[in-house]
Amino acid sequence: MITFLTDFGTADYFVPAVKGIIYSISPQTTIIDLSHDIPAQDIRFAAFTLGACYQDFPAGTIHLGVVDPGVGSTRRPLIVVTENHFFVGPDNGLFSYVYAREKSIQVFHACLPDFFRPTISPTFHGRDVFAPLAAWLSQGVSPKSLGEEISDFVRLEISSPQLIENSVLGEIIHIDRFGNCITNLTLEEFDLKNEKTGSRFFIKDLEVDQLGTYFAQAQLTGNLFAYLGSAGYWEVAMWKDSAALRMKIERGTPVKILRD
Amino acid sequence: MITFLTDFGTADYFVPAVKGIIYSISPQTTIIDLSHDIPAQDIRFAAFTLGACYQDFPAGTIHLGVVDPGVGSTRRPLIVVTENHFFVGPDNGLFSYVYAREKSIQVFHACLPDFFRPTISPTFHGRDVFAPLAAWLSQGVSPKSLGEEISDFVRLEISSPQLIENSVLGEIIHIDRFGNCITNLTLEEFDLKNEKTGSRFFIKDLEVDQLGTYFAQAQLTGNLFAYLGSAGYWEVAMWKDSAALRMKIERGTPVKILRD
Amino acid sequence: MITFLTDFGTADYFVPAVKGIIYSISPQTTIIDLSHDIPAQDIRFAAFTLGACYQDFPAGTIHLGVVDPGVGSTRRPLIVVTENHFFVGPDNGLFSYVYAREKSIQVFHACLPDFFRPTISPTFHGRDVFAPLAAWLSQGVSPKSLGEEISDFVRLEISSPQLIENSVLGEIIHIDRFGNCITNLTLEEFDLKNEKTGSRFFIKDLEVDQLGTYFAQAQLTGNLFAYLGSAGYWEVAMWKDSAALRMKIERGTPVKILRD
Repeated sequence: MITFLTDFGTADYFVPAVKGIIYSISPQTTIIDLSHDIPAQDIRFAAFTLGACYQDFPAGTIHLGVVDPGVGSTRRPLIVVTENHFFVGPDNGLFSYVYAREKSIQVFHACLPDFFRPTISPTFHGRDVFAPLAAWLSQGVSPKSLGEEISDFVRLEISSPQLIENSVLGEIIHIDRFGNCITNLTLEEFDLKNEKTGSRFFIKDLEVDQLGTYFAQAQLTGNLFAYLGSAGYWEVAMWKDSAALRMKIERGTPVKILRD
Repeated sequence: MITFLTDFGTADYFVPAVKGIIYSISPQTTIIDLSHDIPAQDIRFAAFTLGACYQDFPAGTIHLGVVDPGVGSTRRPLIVVTENHFFVGPDNGLFSYVYAREKSIQVFHACLPDFFRPTISPTFHGRDVFAPLAAWLSQGVSPKSLGEEISDFVRLEISSPQLIENSVLGEIIHIDRFGNCITNLTLEEFDLKNEKTGSRFFIKDLEVDQLGTYFAQAQLTGNLFAYLGSAGYWEVAMWKDSAALRMKIERGTPVKILRD
Repeated sequence: MITFLTDFGTADYFVPAVKGIIYSISPQTTIIDLSHDIPAQDIRFAAFTLGACYQDFPAGTIHLGVVDPGVGSTRRPLIVVTENHFFVGPDNGLFSYVYAREKSIQVFHACLPDFFRPTISPTFHGRDVFAPLAAWLSQGVSPKSLGEEISDFVRLEISSPQLIENSVLGEIIHIDRFGNCITNLTLEEFDLKNEKTGSRFFIKDLEVDQLGTYFAQAQLTGNLFAYLGSAGYWEVAMWKDSAALRMKIERGTPVKILRD
């Protein structure tokens, strides 16, 4: 099974060309679209999206990710091996959430053109480099046969909340398609609902005074509403509205817990 | 075979997370996207869409539908069994067209957490409740084993045309992505093309004076055009234009047949 | 294996209805979405998209294409057979790039209603005519059994560059979703990078003075950038911007190589 994540959109020939190449090498494979609607060249958006669901797939799944502003340049094609999964894509930080979550990883620079298409378009490595790599992996070729192990792969910085005096300073790391705003505050670190009396939660300078567990609870008012989201992070939303648009919240917007 | 209908959109991790869970439980299943572009929280849009195509799928198909504004609240997860199909989703009226079309239905409240994921996010029952239920059904687990039969499930009102004196009063029940406007007038009840001489068809206060059978017939003028649509209802459209946008037609907009 | 290309969009019941019919006739088939986001009724966009990727699929693949403004009229349903592939769709030029690329083609008018659905909606031949045809082909029914061979099928004109004195005159034949502009100049005919000294490349009246091989090279300036695209044509783009929107480039916009 191969999942497939890109910023290609679905109007052009890019997505089916990749699938055609995979099926030509590995006809018995099942390809599952992870998403093709990642904002163009937004590696962070793609990295978050992949990080939030790859563990839901069966052991042995191959995750093909192609959000690749550097296509054609010298950035390396990678194969990443974790305890349960494989990942194929460019060395630009796309797998940063995987690196952060997995205890043991092996990263290979796929440098053997024998496993690429005979002719390689410098603008479409998704079809000509990454698709064949994913297909050969699904056929049982070992990652070691496809390249050499490296340790200097690119990691995006994934910010952690900072404790400064009586404050916790975090930020928004993702905005989903409903305009819900995902913070970098996890349940493991902060239980907003069980913070000490007097704790207050802010996004920008706006206090979020509603805490709940599910969306429909927010409907009594049009105010901001915080809850523990399904990816394990605290999120800020508005009932039937986009908190991001309404409150001009973006990735990087600061959040703060102020403890009394 | 499992079809999958949501308002999740395709940019986020929601759709693949559900698929990952299904494949983890039931690796041999085929999952077919029904649609993930239902307008956010629009249960009626989703109900129409499902109603218009579920019967085209093979007997035994499981239809998983998650348009679920009440996620996390006490609304019940349902399994619906008809003569040929299964349905899994929230008890909010999403299956109303199924209830209206099928002669015999059994509805089960899926209340046994053993068949859910071990941890359940209150904001993502699609992944944690409904996906496992659909997967277990596809593995042959009987609906009876997954919950208890109920009869007080939620039905949306699906309006029927009213006959008042020499008029038939109906309404628009759906707008498709081309802006074509679907009425609640079916061929069984009204044959617009064979109405008595002098019958006239109106939408809002606009007379629709072109009746035809296919789109290209409408191209002689830019006027409204009525025809029997592929879902079995009379529809109103404009050639290469959105009748809905152009004429400010919405779901609920009245239509009228005035008989001489 | 059946690929599936339409302008149906993904919000309505049209795409899943077609898949349901195919799976009902041919349950073991794999259906791959080619695209459903072709601009409405844009046969040329669809023809280009199909032409740019059908050869990447395994031999024996059936390509179902339904961009069909003339649905319900007398335009004919076709089955096209090439050396390695099958095509099913309306006789409106949708397969023009296939006709242009393949050495030998056979085209059949599918005229035997026994292989259609029992009732045919005049607005949805995708479900009622083309889906069953593709399904029967995938079951091994021969094209000859489904209709009669014809030679007067519809071909769109696909423009070729013209050499006039010291100029090569071409045009934009496609705009992709990033706003990259695909010309009808192929590598076989023109090697922009190895043109004689003094050759200059224009789109409209704008000189394109950057030539490169991949996108990231363009980032030094915000100017237009030309490169050989993955479909085999020279393309014009802007780094992290839409060349089409920014420079008001459309399909049909002229391009010119001026040789010294």
